[in-house]
Amino acid sequence: MIKIGLVGFGKAGQAVAQVLQDDPRYELSWIARRAAATPGVTAPGMNTSMVVLPTADDWSQWLDSHPVDALVDFSRPESLHLYGEQVRYRGLMLVSAISAYSPDDLDYARTLGSSARVLCSPNITVGINFLIMAAGLLRKIAPFADVEIVEQHFREKPEVSGTARKIAQSINVDEHHITSLRLGGIVGQHEVIFGFPYQTVRLIHNSIERRAFGTGAAFALAELARCVNGFYTFDDLLMRMVRKQLITEQ
Amino acid sequence: MIKIGLVGFGKAGQAVAQVLQDDPRYELSWIARRAAATPGVTAPGMNTSMVVLPTADDWSQWLDSHPVDALVDFSRPESLHLYGEQVRYRGLMLVSAISAYSPDDLDYARTLGSSARVLCSPNITVGINFLIMAAGLLRKIAPFADVEIVEQHFREKPEVSGTARKIAQSINVDEHHITSLRLGGIVGQHEVIFGFPYQTVRLIHNSIERRAFGTGAAFALAELARCVNGFYTFDDLLMRMVRKQLITEQ
Amino acid sequence: MIKIGLVGFGKAGQAVAQVLQDDPRYELSWIARRAAATPGVTAPGMNTSMVVLPTADDWSQWLDSHPVDALVDFSRPESLHLYGEQVRYRGLMLVSAISAYSPDDLDYARTLGSSARVLCSPNITVGINFLIMAAGLLRKIAPFADVEIVEQHFREKPEVSGTARKIAQSINVDEHHITSLRLGGIVGQHEVIFGFPYQTVRLIHNSIERRAFGTGAAFALAELARCVNGFYTFDDLLMRMVRKQLITEQ
Amino acid sequence: MIKIGLVGFGKAGQAVAQVLQDDPRYELSWIARRAAATPGVTAPGMNTSMVVLPTADDWSQWLDSHPVDALVDFSRPESLHLYGEQVRYRGLMLVSAISAYSPDDLDYARTLGSSARVLCSPNITVGINFLIMAAGLLRKIAPFADVEIVEQHFREKPEVSGTARKIAQSINVDEHHITSLRLGGIVGQHEVIFGFPYQTVRLIHNSIERRAFGTGAAFALAELARCVNGFYTFDDLLMRMVRKQLITEQ
Repeated sequence: MIKIGLVGFGKAGQAVAQVLQDDPRYELSWIARRAAATPGVTAPGMNTSMVVLPTADDWSQWLDSHPVDALVDFSRPESLHLYGEQVRYRGLMLVSAISAYSPDDLDYARTLGSSARVLCSPNITVGINFLIMAAGLLRKIAPFADVEIVEQHFREKPEVSGTARKIAQSINVDEHHITSLRLGGIVGQHEVIFGFPYQTVRLIHNSIERRAFGTGAAFALAELARCVNGFYTFDDLLMRMVRKQLITEQ
Repeated sequence: MIKIGLVGFGKAGQAVAQVLQDDPRYELSWIARRAAATPGVTAPGMNTSMVVLPTADDWSQWLDSHPVDALVDFSRPESLHLYGEQVRYRGLMLVSAISAYSPDDLDYARTLGSSARVLCSPNITVGINFLIMAAGLLRKIAPFADVEIVEQHFREKPEVSGTARKIAQSINVDEHHITSLRLGGIVGQHEVIFGFPYQTVRLIHNSIERRAFGTGAAFALAELARCVNGFYTFDDLLMRMVRKQLITEQ
Repeated sequence: MIKIGLVGFGKAGQAVAQVLQDDPRYELSWIARRAAATPGVTAPGMNTSMVVLPTADDWSQWLDSHPVDALVDFSRPESLHLYGEQVRYRGLMLVSAISAYSPDDLDYARTLGSSARVLCSPNITVGINFLIMAAGLLRKIAPFADVEIVEQHFREKPEVSGTARKIAQSINVDEHHITSLRLGGIVGQHEVIFGFPYQTVRLIHNSIERRAFGTGAAFALAELARCVNGFYTFDDLLMRMVRKQLITEQ
Repeated sequence: MIKIGLVGFGKAGQAVAQVLQDDPRYELSWIARRAAATPGVTAPGMNTSMVVLPTADDWSQWLDSHPVDALVDFSRPESLHLYGEQVRYRGLMLVSAISAYSPDDLDYARTLGSSARVLCSPNITVGINFLIMAAGLLRKIAPFADVEIVEQHFREKPEVSGTARKIAQSINVDEHHITSLRLGGIVGQHEVIFGFPYQTVRLIHNSIERRAFGTGAAFALAELARCVNGFYTFDDLLMRMVRKQLITEQ
């Protein structure tokens, strides 16, 4: 059983914690969060003990006394620099879903890949990453088809979905082919439409709940455990599975 | 420009003929059909001359005087045995979309693959074949997801869609997970739904017109022209493109 | 059996003719078209005889010798003024699907309503008109819901769909809530999405073929036959059916 | 501002409470629940005080000291008989969403309608009730169209959706035209498909969260406040709005 330390306990972190603690493949050993919590107090709805996010010095000590095999990070970009050298030194697996990393942050994360298995992906769900991959394949097979991307989210979401932009970029379609609709309380829907002369193909992803991030993190960890040291994105993992699959079938 | 002889001029054949004669990559040299037509008379809506489907002896003579690079067959299983030896002897490309071949017919077609490029696939559209491939990939990535297949066709279609059964088989899902709805004049919709705990992925294909078969045949010919001699299915061609793609990206 | 004369034999007119001649409630007596046809020659695929569209004088004579109960017009705005006085004088039913009528044309058509049953509607299908009506009802019931209209059509369609604009107007939504996607060969899809805080409602219409205009014209005629003299739109007919329904249920 | 007492604090009740306390039109005065709670203690996440569900005798006393204008009931069938006479005697508005009422329970609820405004509906959301109404209208307009109902819910839901059966019944379609798909964690999707020869109409409802029940209850109360005493279903309220609308437009 893989022992996990979860960094970050905001809305996403809480949802992830629920999923990880219910997954028999993992033991969620502890959760670190920024806001001071009474030491030893259990997080609401959780069986594991909480700890205040320690400083860089604390991380070494903390991991000595509370060793884990993997870190899952749903906190903020800064955290990476606090625990990063521990990942390198101890060879911890790292799954980080932070979307706000600067290029410098990502460069640093990449250096950790030489002595550990590190995955950084702002889109941490199987479904979204499959959508990106499948859209990419069809785009290569049929570059002549028209493509439109439609994303639908809750009324308050201000900017174009980052996932939609990622899809557009990865299939080499101009961003003015993205349509953003804001409607009531829709959690998140992404649709990629391929228009052929006499047929259409639609790839649709619907998010139901934030806990999808937890399933995605669990999925990523299981795959990462089978990889050699290196820096990965979620796409890389999927492509790795697909390649293996395609070679087997040949 | 690749010269094509089209075998079969039923509803599908007529739609295919329209597409092929409009595609600048191809020259549709002639169409052979079973029903006797006045020699030299042009098919309705077509620029090419018609010929009555000849016997096996005739095929040799016919191809001597009307040489082509490729045969496209939308007729009946029997035709294969009439023109087959010409394919072998002349090294013609063959794209056949017959769905009613017996195992023996397919065995014979396979033997032609040793001296020609032969493609046999009952599903000849890019969209449907992509759907089958994408569903197969997601099934491998996420075997734990629930899967349902829903096909919708015009009221009169009596049996379960062969394409839906092909999808079920290729992703190893029991046929009782296929739902067949019969509604008015729907040309054809296939949907594969993957249900995850906190997200869903839907792959949807809509047929607009029979001419999709023509686009598919044209697509297959273009790919086949880049292959070595052998027996192929449409899936093979797509997988070949995808593999090439994946290796390039690595 | 209601005897019909069809005015106009372009793409829409031809599709309509096919439907009307197969509908046992109607007898399609003749078709008038602008381009000169050899008198007495049958239109392609049709059992009825053809006639060149006559001038205003001719209409009187033509209808004396070829009497009908109803005119169905899929031609051009001018035709109305050629046959209009015959409609008034003979009390013919008229179903016109011309979308390019000027306000003056419509004023003239309205005057015919005092001595005949006249329906003018650019959207002549049951489905589209139901969509407009249903969207209007939900808008009244839940004015607080967010609304978006998405229309998808074939690549070459240049302007925003008139139907989408009609929907926007009838539910009092600004036209920047219409999204127009152009994709391959899509015949026509209109979707009205209502976003509530915790639920969504989607009303979707898909056109399969132009023959839907024929079914719509046949439907309109059947309803019109039950009305008193007057000027109607398709909406009016539907609302009339719905009102009757609602009163019965009360 | 309408003062509300909420009866029932299970999963649905809790979601409803959240919505009602955020709606400026209402004051959620108290919540009664079956399980004993410490008197005066606030429910988790709620600003209002809690009370243990009292016996029939207690209700009189409770309402004397904690008067409200309306009761909203998301508890169990039994509760109706405990507070029923208070509804009658005090002329309280009642919105009940209990689906397990026996015919006798409903008969009793109907008697309350003579001295109060009473709404009982197992489907308490605007979206679902609109779907039922719209499907009913289209069915009347186009009885010749093919109809299929497809409902999709989370894997564990054992039986056919009651809402789907209600739709089937209200549009007079046999229940074998209902397809139930069970897929991962889908909260709830209902689709009614009308297949015409050359077009299709799809009416789709998606549930996002249980809090939709709260919005529905708030909506029902606002409408009920405009009605005379009587027994209503949610359909009745919608039809009332629609009728008013249709008459205004006439």
